[in-house]
Amino acid sequence: MISDFVQSIGFLAAICTTIAFLPQAWKIYKTKSSKDISLPTWIIFSFGVFLWLIYGILIMSFPLILANIFTLLLSLFILIFKIKYNK
Amino acid sequence: MISDFVQSIGFLAAICTTIAFLPQAWKIYKTKSSKDISLPTWIIFSFGVFLWLIYGILIMSFPLILANIFTLLLSLFILIFKIKYNK
Repeated sequence: MISDFVQSIGFLAAICTTIAFLPQAWKIYKTKSSKDISLPTWIIFSFGVFLWLIYGILIMSFPLILANIFTLLLSLFILIFKIKYNK
Repeated sequence: MISDFVQSIGFLAAICTTIAFLPQAWKIYKTKSSKDISLPTWIIFSFGVFLWLIYGILIMSFPLILANIFTLLLSLFILIFKIKYNK
């Protein structure tokens, strides 16, 4: 049995690694510049987050599904803007 | 009981979201340019991955510990180079 304290650490970790990409998405949207951002990183990362989402659905983990839907939207946003403003 | 197929999806997801940051780390190292990279993103992400590592240690999950040590090293590398070459 995982204690409430340990669960809280995991919950806080999930929040951080999800909201972390908001400033990057905002920056790329605002500056319209993405030269320093790695294209393979965001292709592989988006695919990985998609797999986490599938995994979350298969094991019916609501927190995993919710966190990964949000992260997938942010990473696809960054990926699309990376391709659009790659200069 | 989680099936082998489902476990494989989770394993592949973990590999993708870990190795994804290798090309970004390589790019920032090679170009010495990090203008388009968001500083708050890599501060929050590194902190989140650190919490995932603590969570992995607390629940004694070897895959979680291993994946997050690797991701933490990559994200700290990107964070340090972001600060160093922020031009």
